Amino acid sequence: MKIALDAMGGDLAPAALCEGALQFAGESVDHEVVLVGDERRIRETLGGRTLTNLHLHHASEVVEMTDHAVESVRKKKDSSIRKCFELLKRGDVAAVVSAGNSGAAMAAALFVVGRVKGIERPAIAALFPSLGGGRSLLVDAGASVECRPIHLVHFAIMGETYARRALDVSSPRIAILSNGEEESKGTKLTRDALALLKKSDLHFVGYIEGKDLFSGFADVVVTDGFTGNVVLKASEGTAMGIAALIRSAIERSGLSERLGALLLKPTLAGLRKVVDYSEYGGAPLLGINGIGIIAHGRSTPKAIKNALRTALSAADVHLSDELRQRLEEAQRWLPQRQRPEKEAAPSTVSG
Amino acid sequence: MKIALDAMGGDLAPAALCEGALQFAGESVDHEVVLVGDERRIRETLGGRTLTNLHLHHASEVVEMTDHAVESVRKKKDSSIRKCFELLKRGDVAAVVSAGNSGAAMAAALFVVGRVKGIERPAIAALFPSLGGGRSLLVDAGASVECRPIHLVHFAIMGETYARRALDVSSPRIAILSNGEEESKGTKLTRDALALLKKSDLHFVGYIEGKDLFSGFADVVVTDGFTGNVVLKASEGTAMGIAALIRSAIERSGLSERLGALLLKPTLAGLRKVVDYSEYGGAPLLGINGIGIIAHGRSTPKAIKNALRTALSAADVHLSDELRQRLEEAQRWLPQRQRPEKEAAPSTVSG
Repeated sequence: MKIALDAMGGDLAPAALCEGALQFAGESVDHEVVLVGDERRIRETLGGRTLTNLHLHHASEVVEMTDHAVESVRKKKDSSIRKCFELLKRGDVAAVVSAGNSGAAMAAALFVVGRVKGIERPAIAALFPSLGGGRSLLVDAGASVECRPIHLVHFAIMGETYARRALDVSSPRIAILSNGEEESKGTKLTRDALALLKKSDLHFVGYIEGKDLFSGFADVVVTDGFTGNVVLKASEGTAMGIAALIRSAIERSGLSERLGALLLKPTLAGLRKVVDYSEYGGAPLLGINGIGIIAHGRSTPKAIKNALRTALSAADVHLSDELRQRLEEAQRWLPQRQRPEKEAAPSTVSG
Repeated sequence: MKIALDAMGGDLAPAALCEGALQFAGESVDHEVVLVGDERRIRETLGGRTLTNLHLHHASEVVEMTDHAVESVRKKKDSSIRKCFELLKRGDVAAVVSAGNSGAAMAAALFVVGRVKGIERPAIAALFPSLGGGRSLLVDAGASVECRPIHLVHFAIMGETYARRALDVSSPRIAILSNGEEESKGTKLTRDALALLKKSDLHFVGYIEGKDLFSGFADVVVTDGFTGNVVLKASEGTAMGIAALIRSAIERSGLSERLGALLLKPTLAGLRKVVDYSEYGGAPLLGINGIGIIAHGRSTPKAIKNALRTALSAADVHLSDELRQRLEEAQRWLPQRQRPEKEAAPSTVSG
């Protein structure tokens, strides 16, 4: 299988991308990676290192992190992220991986390959481990910052499909993130989505509070992309901060090596994984026609390699076909007036 | 000074409330506490323990955690939370403390004592420590779940006033919680509030991401009450979960006592404080005519004692007067059409 990697996206581009691609291509000799971006800079970074399954596709422009997502994708026709999805559309690659501006990745996906029929808003599904040892998906982790109730319902259907097919959860439990468990809590958005999901044939378990996000009470937690992004990053910040507190306590105690080796090193290493979804190989962009994987902006070469692997597995299970079928079935319980309408595309995507 | 304590509110009511009141009254002999609630149950709980500065005020009804906030406060005219604010209105007490349904506490405050003129929506200001050692305020932590831009601006003004007067921060830095630092990020709500705050005379530092919430980059972080509640609880959940992971690692290693005593016990104790605002003595309800302190629903007697102390200090600095003056000054930069309108009261309060 062949995967396009946006070589210019992310805080450590193109270095971390090139290194990650080299690692993946070196290990997965049956598959191919296409580095998409500025040919001269990529060649400089590779410094003469080549592999027969590592390719290069030139793109002269870059969408920066500070760019307005939709506008820049529209204007920068030769941007690396847009070129990636053009390769996907032509069938030259089976999946796209990007660590760049995630809003731009979504906009490029919508412009070039479009949405799965029936889905109005794509979503980023962030995989995070629950503290009991399982894993849960947060949908949306930042793709669609402003949502209507039907969008949360679509996020539930997409998350359920991904959890079943890619994570092997047989009957994923779905919850809505809210400010309390009682049905009277939440916003108009969450209450209307709750009413719709209660009528669904999904394994819907109601509201879940922020404090239980990592408790493993649900396999798929749906929320708007603004809340999802803020919550994930706040949890990441909390965990990183706590790890720093513990490290400084060890240093002050002067017992660094002994205690670290004994007990704390694995725990500290585990902490990072608890909330940093880059470690889990990137987050799939659900609801687009094809496979797109969003990696963390600060992805290391290892995280990029993991994201390429995630792309492989998602392409393997034919996610989009499965989702189309699931949406078809959902027409039985989706209220008529709530059926997905045609919409003019990604004008609501945040930058 | 005399403080009313809702004896029936909270997961551990009335026991934790009575114990906390006894502790506070025993230590603060110059001040008085009025336990408001079911006289028989309170007397049973006190079991004959009395103090000359501990009083009782009967209320026959209770607003439960599952009740719809506004409706129940309207209907349950003899509820303990409503009685508390009636004592405040009559000037019998200088402040109210409640660990019950926080939506109901806000609704009762709005019904009985009302808002500070010019403020449309009150807010809960949650104090949390930043990892560098300082403290920050999150406004709103859950009082007003659905907001308009002007509400976030009011939250900024209220938070700034509280940080200056109650926390002794000379020029509080104000930020808006968002899904990215760039001004193109956020929702329509955050972008419109950003535009207003850029024109203000506040020390406004722009957007702050979830990952930097605990970094100490801002003294006051404003957000809608839904996001604020979810983010605080998710951070609390992350910290508690990590503490549990570390405890189980210690137990597995069989080194519990030695290592715990050496290094980890103080760190673990510190973790709880990092995000659990109950430890900080409750969160002030800003924007009401008078002092109301919201304590965590699971408040221990110690947390209740701390909340009573917070109420004392807030009453001491005449917060409402200061806020009125600050709002008057803000008329210079608040756009004319954005000036606070009259509004029909707390119909938008979530349950």
